[in-house]
Amino acid sequence: MSPTEVHGNPETYNPRKVLDHPDFQIVKEGDKLSPEANIAAFYNQNKEIHLVKKPKPKPGPGQVLLHVRATGICGSDVHFWKHGRIGDSMVVRDECGSGHESAGEVVEIGEGVSQWKPGDRVAIEAGVPCSQPACDACRTGRYNACPDVVFFSTPPYHGTLTRWHLHPAQWLHRLPDNVSFEEGSLCEPLAVALAGIERSGLRLGDPLLICGAGPIGLVTLLSARAAGAEPIVITDLFQSRLDFAKQLVPGVRTVLISRNKNPKEQSEIIKKTAGTPLTVALECTGVESSIHTAIYSMVFGAKVFIIGVGKSEQSFPFMHLSANEIDVSFEYRYANQYPKAIRLVAGGLINIKPLVTHRFSLEDAVAAFHVAADPAQGAIKVQIQD
Amino acid sequence: MSPTEVHGNPETYNPRKVLDHPDFQIVKEGDKLSPEANIAAFYNQNKEIHLVKKPKPKPGPGQVLLHVRATGICGSDVHFWKHGRIGDSMVVRDECGSGHESAGEVVEIGEGVSQWKPGDRVAIEAGVPCSQPACDACRTGRYNACPDVVFFSTPPYHGTLTRWHLHPAQWLHRLPDNVSFEEGSLCEPLAVALAGIERSGLRLGDPLLICGAGPIGLVTLLSARAAGAEPIVITDLFQSRLDFAKQLVPGVRTVLISRNKNPKEQSEIIKKTAGTPLTVALECTGVESSIHTAIYSMVFGAKVFIIGVGKSEQSFPFMHLSANEIDVSFEYRYANQYPKAIRLVAGGLINIKPLVTHRFSLEDAVAAFHVAADPAQGAIKVQIQD
Amino acid sequence: MSPTEVHGNPETYNPRKVLDHPDFQIVKEGDKLSPEANIAAFYNQNKEIHLVKKPKPKPGPGQVLLHVRATGICGSDVHFWKHGRIGDSMVVRDECGSGHESAGEVVEIGEGVSQWKPGDRVAIEAGVPCSQPACDACRTGRYNACPDVVFFSTPPYHGTLTRWHLHPAQWLHRLPDNVSFEEGSLCEPLAVALAGIERSGLRLGDPLLICGAGPIGLVTLLSARAAGAEPIVITDLFQSRLDFAKQLVPGVRTVLISRNKNPKEQSEIIKKTAGTPLTVALECTGVESSIHTAIYSMVFGAKVFIIGVGKSEQSFPFMHLSANEIDVSFEYRYANQYPKAIRLVAGGLINIKPLVTHRFSLEDAVAAFHVAADPAQGAIKVQIQD
Amino acid sequence: MSPTEVHGNPETYNPRKVLDHPDFQIVKEGDKLSPEANIAAFYNQNKEIHLVKKPKPKPGPGQVLLHVRATGICGSDVHFWKHGRIGDSMVVRDECGSGHESAGEVVEIGEGVSQWKPGDRVAIEAGVPCSQPACDACRTGRYNACPDVVFFSTPPYHGTLTRWHLHPAQWLHRLPDNVSFEEGSLCEPLAVALAGIERSGLRLGDPLLICGAGPIGLVTLLSARAAGAEPIVITDLFQSRLDFAKQLVPGVRTVLISRNKNPKEQSEIIKKTAGTPLTVALECTGVESSIHTAIYSMVFGAKVFIIGVGKSEQSFPFMHLSANEIDVSFEYRYANQYPKAIRLVAGGLINIKPLVTHRFSLEDAVAAFHVAADPAQGAIKVQIQD
Repeated sequence: MSPTEVHGNPETYNPRKVLDHPDFQIVKEGDKLSPEANIAAFYNQNKEIHLVKKPKPKPGPGQVLLHVRATGICGSDVHFWKHGRIGDSMVVRDECGSGHESAGEVVEIGEGVSQWKPGDRVAIEAGVPCSQPACDACRTGRYNACPDVVFFSTPPYHGTLTRWHLHPAQWLHRLPDNVSFEEGSLCEPLAVALAGIERSGLRLGDPLLICGAGPIGLVTLLSARAAGAEPIVITDLFQSRLDFAKQLVPGVRTVLISRNKNPKEQSEIIKKTAGTPLTVALECTGVESSIHTAIYSMVFGAKVFIIGVGKSEQSFPFMHLSANEIDVSFEYRYANQYPKAIRLVAGGLINIKPLVTHRFSLEDAVAAFHVAADPAQGAIKVQIQD
Repeated sequence: MSPTEVHGNPETYNPRKVLDHPDFQIVKEGDKLSPEANIAAFYNQNKEIHLVKKPKPKPGPGQVLLHVRATGICGSDVHFWKHGRIGDSMVVRDECGSGHESAGEVVEIGEGVSQWKPGDRVAIEAGVPCSQPACDACRTGRYNACPDVVFFSTPPYHGTLTRWHLHPAQWLHRLPDNVSFEEGSLCEPLAVALAGIERSGLRLGDPLLICGAGPIGLVTLLSARAAGAEPIVITDLFQSRLDFAKQLVPGVRTVLISRNKNPKEQSEIIKKTAGTPLTVALECTGVESSIHTAIYSMVFGAKVFIIGVGKSEQSFPFMHLSANEIDVSFEYRYANQYPKAIRLVAGGLINIKPLVTHRFSLEDAVAAFHVAADPAQGAIKVQIQD
Repeated sequence: MSPTEVHGNPETYNPRKVLDHPDFQIVKEGDKLSPEANIAAFYNQNKEIHLVKKPKPKPGPGQVLLHVRATGICGSDVHFWKHGRIGDSMVVRDECGSGHESAGEVVEIGEGVSQWKPGDRVAIEAGVPCSQPACDACRTGRYNACPDVVFFSTPPYHGTLTRWHLHPAQWLHRLPDNVSFEEGSLCEPLAVALAGIERSGLRLGDPLLICGAGPIGLVTLLSARAAGAEPIVITDLFQSRLDFAKQLVPGVRTVLISRNKNPKEQSEIIKKTAGTPLTVALECTGVESSIHTAIYSMVFGAKVFIIGVGKSEQSFPFMHLSANEIDVSFEYRYANQYPKAIRLVAGGLINIKPLVTHRFSLEDAVAAFHVAADPAQGAIKVQIQD
Repeated sequence: MSPTEVHGNPETYNPRKVLDHPDFQIVKEGDKLSPEANIAAFYNQNKEIHLVKKPKPKPGPGQVLLHVRATGICGSDVHFWKHGRIGDSMVVRDECGSGHESAGEVVEIGEGVSQWKPGDRVAIEAGVPCSQPACDACRTGRYNACPDVVFFSTPPYHGTLTRWHLHPAQWLHRLPDNVSFEEGSLCEPLAVALAGIERSGLRLGDPLLICGAGPIGLVTLLSARAAGAEPIVITDLFQSRLDFAKQLVPGVRTVLISRNKNPKEQSEIIKKTAGTPLTVALECTGVESSIHTAIYSMVFGAKVFIIGVGKSEQSFPFMHLSANEIDVSFEYRYANQYPKAIRLVAGGLINIKPLVTHRFSLEDAVAAFHVAADPAQGAIKVQIQD
């Protein structure tokens, strides 16, 4: 029994089907783009990014056709464009559609779909696992480990940064009236942060260190504060980001990381700033020196939870970890976080709106990518809205 | 998208399809039974039990036809026969096939089944959940909570105590060469015990009380000893069962429950027998006085895990639970236990063979039920083998 | 080695020492009370409450003399006065001092005390366990289970509702400048709530039911919201209390319990109000019908955590618990909650100030008790300040 | 309040008191040693090991004088002798007594000791934490983190490899009649293994990898099998150790590590040998390549628990850990393991006796150290008995 039969015709998700379709074409300077055209932002193996036109698909059984209304650009989108790969298993080998932080509107439903109707507003969960009972990951609820996952925007699968997107009906999440498309698309990075909160074991009143005040660090900050962490110390190399963090969560304590200080020296400042022994770190940079700093900042028995990704091999202060029983854990995507993310946004416990600093139309998606890729622009989250 | 498409044609499991089939008939005294006939033991709303003949099914896509080779009779099979119901939701309203503790041999495979071939030896997981991503229970790995489960032998679904049984290919578990069909069928009650061990949090060296030395109590005893519980105290109303327990696990300490003693008095004997504070109870009777005894036997902070089922409403020593932070937990069937059960049997950590005290042919299934239902026979586990 | 040597001379806590002292006397109408007099509110075995005068103690080694500045009246204080006992083990047999929710100022320190000096502001942890390595409860960190605990205000030990109180130096918690004595004394009921949050496993985004909007229910509400529970439904028999809850936490959803509806009917309203499956209940009433309501309101696999105390024996819907794997847990006091409580108050995550509805001077403590005991007064928390 | 008052006069443990005593002397070749002499094996800053004579102490309040009857030599004893330090905090700066794996007999009791009498047989817990309520580690039950611990044999504190040893009464554990002194002293390495089992979360039926078949690896193997791990794969560089492992636990699967294979290659062999996805590793070598091998051998979501100690800084396959959510945890000594260790040995669940391969008299302690330090001798556990 193939995933097809749970999620609709997988052929539809076959990236070759799009690439080989006669209507697929790269948009050229001056091309006229109809408001109905299924345009999308694609990167390729030559580290180019451009708009493409592709056919508007039809939903098969169990599928839904969506009008994507808001999509955020993730660091990984930029990374695929600029470097052509993440690790050894995710490699851009052809034209590939970007985007996986999206929300949209139901336009058309396939056979057997009864839970949705045109006009329904949804957040799109971009990773679609196989959901087969014989898959240990899926059967045991840890579906982010599914080896047969289709993750839209991870090569070779095209992403959701497009006008018309086809999706399995069961991997959409209803947006309440008080949650906008913009917020719906932000539920994706929020899901990343919430998975970290959940797996790190963070509880009410836990003294917490967050390393890094980039987009994931800031969503993590909002989530950690909603979870009742206190005190929270956040670090970054840039004062502007710390200032942004302070605006988001006035009670947060900030530590500016200096390239002239080693991890042990940094950790002394962090511990002093915290004023109470730190029991959890949520590390959002993936940078070796930052991870060392986190480790040295912890009390005996603490947990350092690493959300960030980084160098393939990294050094760890082994004996310090051992003599202090500091647990180190990691995160790969997320499972079962979307309903919670929407609930927390709708309930007002997490206000993610301030994270969007730049907005572009779909036609200007390439410009949006350039802003997202340029640190000098100071963007936190760049969104494309349609 | 319906369960059909993951598990093969559900129509095949539709109990009416069997009952309304022209070849369905109740076997009468003196009927000749061909070795190919698909005979089965059925109970009905009149509290009768008898053999029936029914059509031999054909596997649809994703399905496998099995020759059931060994089936154990569970207390619930007897209960459905004798009382016609368990609780308010499981009611015998028509002829219904019994049996859910089975192992067998693959005879024929349906379309798309690649992991099995005729001759393969398998344990049959009798509860088949929907496995749909939109089902919270299935998506989060707690599939015993699936509201759309087909549990063979729970009315109205016919059971596995039959010669030819149709099953979804993904809910079978391979038996290693050194595990017999008899042991394979015993993996079902073992799965019940293992779910209890897992959910109760029992760990190596935990001092444990097991209440009840019936089939589930004894499988629990074997499992708890394999998990390293020490000491283990087991209780029962019958010395013969305690003797059986002592043969299975010589190190176990036994306490004969007397109807003349109240729970507090019993608990004093249990605590003295244990000699060390008891931190876990695995309650396998579901009887109010036994549960009270378990509760009074525990130390502050202990867990009383109730596997047994019983009266709809029961009294609890509330303030004793409160003043001693004793957690009370319950079990409903099991999820993700079969692979572990088979591994433990194959590895020699749990020897379940001695539990089978009586064996019958499929043609004598009704006689088997009568032995299982009669406490005077002293049966632990009655098996029907074909 | 006796507790004495860790906590200072235990003789000082010997209640007889106070009662037999020549200066101990019950204050009579018209007695003049010097501002230096060590007055206190005592209950006795005749269900009387009155002020007494008792000697001002001197701190021994490891002890601190405190000027108690704020004390809240707890339901148990009123219960000891009105009923003379809680359960079978805590019985008022003589004059006994009330109060255990206190904060104060260090006045004098005993030998070997280096962490405090006169003028330091502290919350007083009223339960002082033995802290001996041979005590399993103390050695394993679960000190609320210590069988040798001295819990001030639990008979026969006199309470902290007095002017001059002697306390072991190690069981005081420093108040930051931005936490008042009033808030410091409220850290005691907050510790009760936080222990419930911690032991119930409540996490960010968990849909929660709180039963009862009395003082403990309301502190639990504040804590649960700080922990990110969403949605939160709270129940009570009185609309005024629900209105109070709504003022404290505007996002909370309220359900007025009607004596005309049975638990299943109430649970339908609660589930509809929640709108999402409820996974945790924090039961703060200890009343059988409320507990049943909580149980019926839960989804499969949920936890019902019972903070409230009530009837010695209570009925439970056993088969519903079993068929839905609903865990039931309980709380007895708290351990290791004070530092967290103070941190959360100081950090602004929990604002407990609105809970104090009535304030009295120490000289008017008896009047305070009468207000606390009279439901018609609508008091949430009555405080005595000195 | 100082630790003194809980544990007896700490002056007695003051290492200088022994070193400065007029009766302290290094035993010279040919010195006559009376059977009453308090001889002991000491190492020093010059990497020498020799016998010394020291005064026989008198028990103060809360203390017990023991006749040490059996002591095992630990790798750390040898390491202190040969390298003079472990890490930066434990440095041999003077003569220092060895040994912390001991059992013995009560000879004399100090004031206030009521639980022991001369002739009682006990295991000696060598790490004595402060047990003060103000110590976060001690108050929360994680006493292995106590910063003020006296750990006998960790410089500067003298060890238990001596004839007459003084110990706090509360840190002794009664040996049942069926547990010998030899087994009692082996409870120390067993406590190390049990802490690993407990903190790693290992449960019944978990497929497990153990890296290293030295003394700790083998005790861990026995413990893991008692906990029901299945399958268990164990690795080592020496076939003789794997053969020993196989004798201890016939069901274990062995993999000989080759210096010619890299960790990924080794892991392929390990995974094939296991035959089922491995969810836990107990790493007992602390060697970088072995840790990498463990990590690559794990399934998504597994735990690598590192008991072994090793190089201060070590490289980790960061992105593999991240992409597979593999948790890495560490162990520092143990807390609350002795009663469990004794229970498991007494109950026959763990048979540690075969681990002792060499036995020496106390007078021959130096020879024993030379055997323990020489890999060519093939010793697993060397014991000194008196």
